[in-house]
Amino acid sequence: MKRNVLIIGAGGVGQVVAHKCAQHNDVLGDIHLASRSIEKCEAILRSVREKRSLKTGGRLVGHALDALDVERTAQLIRDTGAEIVINVGSAFLNMSVLSACIATGAAYIDTAIHEDPLKICETPPWYGNYEWKRHADCAGAGITAILGAGFDPGVVNAYAALARDEYFDKIDSIDIVDVNAGDHGRYFATNFDPEINFREFTGQVWSWQKGEWTANKMFEVSKKWDLPVVGNRTTYLTGHDEIHSLSKNLDVPNVRFWMGFGERYINVFTVLRNLGLLSEQPVKTAEGLEVVPLKVVKAVLPDPSSLAPDYAGKTCIGDVVKGVKDGQKREIFIYNVADHEEAYAEVGSQAISYTAGVPAAAAAILVAKGDWDARKMVNVEELAPRPFLHLLDQMGLPTRIRDAEGDRPLSFEGKPATAATRAAEPALAG
Amino acid sequence: MKRNVLIIGAGGVGQVVAHKCAQHNDVLGDIHLASRSIEKCEAILRSVREKRSLKTGGRLVGHALDALDVERTAQLIRDTGAEIVINVGSAFLNMSVLSACIATGAAYIDTAIHEDPLKICETPPWYGNYEWKRHADCAGAGITAILGAGFDPGVVNAYAALARDEYFDKIDSIDIVDVNAGDHGRYFATNFDPEINFREFTGQVWSWQKGEWTANKMFEVSKKWDLPVVGNRTTYLTGHDEIHSLSKNLDVPNVRFWMGFGERYINVFTVLRNLGLLSEQPVKTAEGLEVVPLKVVKAVLPDPSSLAPDYAGKTCIGDVVKGVKDGQKREIFIYNVADHEEAYAEVGSQAISYTAGVPAAAAAILVAKGDWDARKMVNVEELAPRPFLHLLDQMGLPTRIRDAEGDRPLSFEGKPATAATRAAEPALAG
Repeated sequence: MKRNVLIIGAGGVGQVVAHKCAQHNDVLGDIHLASRSIEKCEAILRSVREKRSLKTGGRLVGHALDALDVERTAQLIRDTGAEIVINVGSAFLNMSVLSACIATGAAYIDTAIHEDPLKICETPPWYGNYEWKRHADCAGAGITAILGAGFDPGVVNAYAALARDEYFDKIDSIDIVDVNAGDHGRYFATNFDPEINFREFTGQVWSWQKGEWTANKMFEVSKKWDLPVVGNRTTYLTGHDEIHSLSKNLDVPNVRFWMGFGERYINVFTVLRNLGLLSEQPVKTAEGLEVVPLKVVKAVLPDPSSLAPDYAGKTCIGDVVKGVKDGQKREIFIYNVADHEEAYAEVGSQAISYTAGVPAAAAAILVAKGDWDARKMVNVEELAPRPFLHLLDQMGLPTRIRDAEGDRPLSFEGKPATAATRAAEPALAG
Repeated sequence: MKRNVLIIGAGGVGQVVAHKCAQHNDVLGDIHLASRSIEKCEAILRSVREKRSLKTGGRLVGHALDALDVERTAQLIRDTGAEIVINVGSAFLNMSVLSACIATGAAYIDTAIHEDPLKICETPPWYGNYEWKRHADCAGAGITAILGAGFDPGVVNAYAALARDEYFDKIDSIDIVDVNAGDHGRYFATNFDPEINFREFTGQVWSWQKGEWTANKMFEVSKKWDLPVVGNRTTYLTGHDEIHSLSKNLDVPNVRFWMGFGERYINVFTVLRNLGLLSEQPVKTAEGLEVVPLKVVKAVLPDPSSLAPDYAGKTCIGDVVKGVKDGQKREIFIYNVADHEEAYAEVGSQAISYTAGVPAAAAAILVAKGDWDARKMVNVEELAPRPFLHLLDQMGLPTRIRDAEGDRPLSFEGKPATAATRAAEPALAG
């Protein structure tokens, strides 16, 4: 049993994690929230108190922290007695926070891969460039480090593991599809940190095809999907974290990630990229000021957490898995549909933050309870998927299955969902 | 007679002015070029020497100067013995350079209106906010200050004066049309300082209609013109310097400015403006750096002078004037066509810089010779247009006339051009 949680990062995802940890503080103990900006921590903690998210009486404390500083981060872990650290800060922080966890013995959970501010889209597999280099350190010290425990990466990795365990003898392809059919009413905004968002798309698109890394350009390859609830959507082959672990941990020759983009997004992205405004490399103004263009773009765009009050519509994210079971070809879509307005009503965040933050809190609960306390570094597909998906079902992110037999919730009656369970559940509008 | 020229500004226009002054250094005397960057001065002076632009032996010297510093600018005017200052630096410098001229007695010439870095598109007439406030100072001290002596403003103001003097008894409307049909081969670039370029379009569009200032939004009002050489072009009602003096100095109820824009320009502009990246007001990055977005956009865009080697095609800029002569309704288009490649071959700059820089050098020659040594502050339409247009005819910017009688060069035989002179000139392809 591990107790007391330190959440690092006070953006939209941090807000969700704080609320969800508070709702389970009988298991998790004290809840600490740290960010460069103490004001952002305080705002989130106010929201947790206002919405009465704390399940039982307990500590709820904000801290100012530069999490690039390993020493100070380790000291805060010691001072707070946190045995679990949930890192939902910038992707630039992973390695320093992980180092602090290894130094202190705390369990580490994050939701996105580490990035070097000055490098975009490095050689695959991306995890091999940073996190996996500390694999032996974690195993040696018995440190639990769960990498990529958001929705994608995270829940979609668990979906892949579930498909492998219960639905297929042999998987030929996993296509992860991420569509946000929500509308925030702004001219343009990203749904999470614009800097990290754009960095996903400015380099090469890496996919795992026929057992090899394949490079494409962004918006070069598109594919339409007919999805539950959100309907027909055009998506684009996109580089994404989970491909870089699934390709190693699962014996699957094709792992691809498809993200839905509207015309507005593509136009804005194309203009900004072509002008050089998405560059992570500094430029010098005529006045001699050195500045990274992408950081200025981030500064002028809406704060993603500010979108939440006006956000309406749903997201649909899941895994289209194809392969063979009992000698028969099979195709299955394991997915979740989340609702922006419901997420906002519950925790004050939009659904993109919600789908990323709830799984991280669920992972922390599983670590606290021992189910997922792996005492080594793992990606989510290396852990048992059912406890995670069961907990998410109760925490607001239910899993559904669509295949030849129909569309139904994933059953937790101790065996895979079948058509027999379907009639008992109301169908989601298609 | 005034002699010795100090050119302030070493961009694309400064390069043209330096070459053109050098070609007339028998009249103008020493040529000094000052800029914040001495390297940019040296590069231009090298180009002047390489192209053997100096007409006679004479001084050609570069200087590092912060022209916002009135004292240092005045000192440089005194040190160089310059009696004429041609200010083709940033539009933010006008008032400090003008002050230095008033302090030293030097004549002042510029090509664009003064701007305050933190203000966009102020109350019309724009000249009333800055330059005209020094009108009495110039008159009192006998200082010649010629405002807006580029092409537009500048030559188009002289076209308006010519129309008034020679073609109309009463003018109803002056529509200034500026179309650049050139192609620089880049995804996107502005033809002069991006900061000044964008600032023209981010505020209200002021036009003078029915004797009143009228406000529109950028790209709200469009108009197609069938123009010589460049053909059918869509233009947009745009705020521009010359409207702000012509509306005061000419008794004309309608003065409008129409600029041609391609779809790419409009899309890029729209995206950047809507995101807030064209803002002249500083923002703060997540790291706490204060920066003006527009200055970062400028920093990533191509240096306009770098476009020149690959620039092909022509510009067409002129005045469509409508009114009455001898009781008859009349319409006339007074215009110039310039060629990007010819400009580059002659002075190493593209045609947008060429059309702005040649008139400023011509104005300096007229001041030196006494024709335009007004000893007060004037806009170009307050000066005799024929000496200016005649000199421009010889310096590379010939004036043409298109009306009911046909399309022909403006004649300098001592009377207005008529159809009789037309046959002697080769027609430009329409």
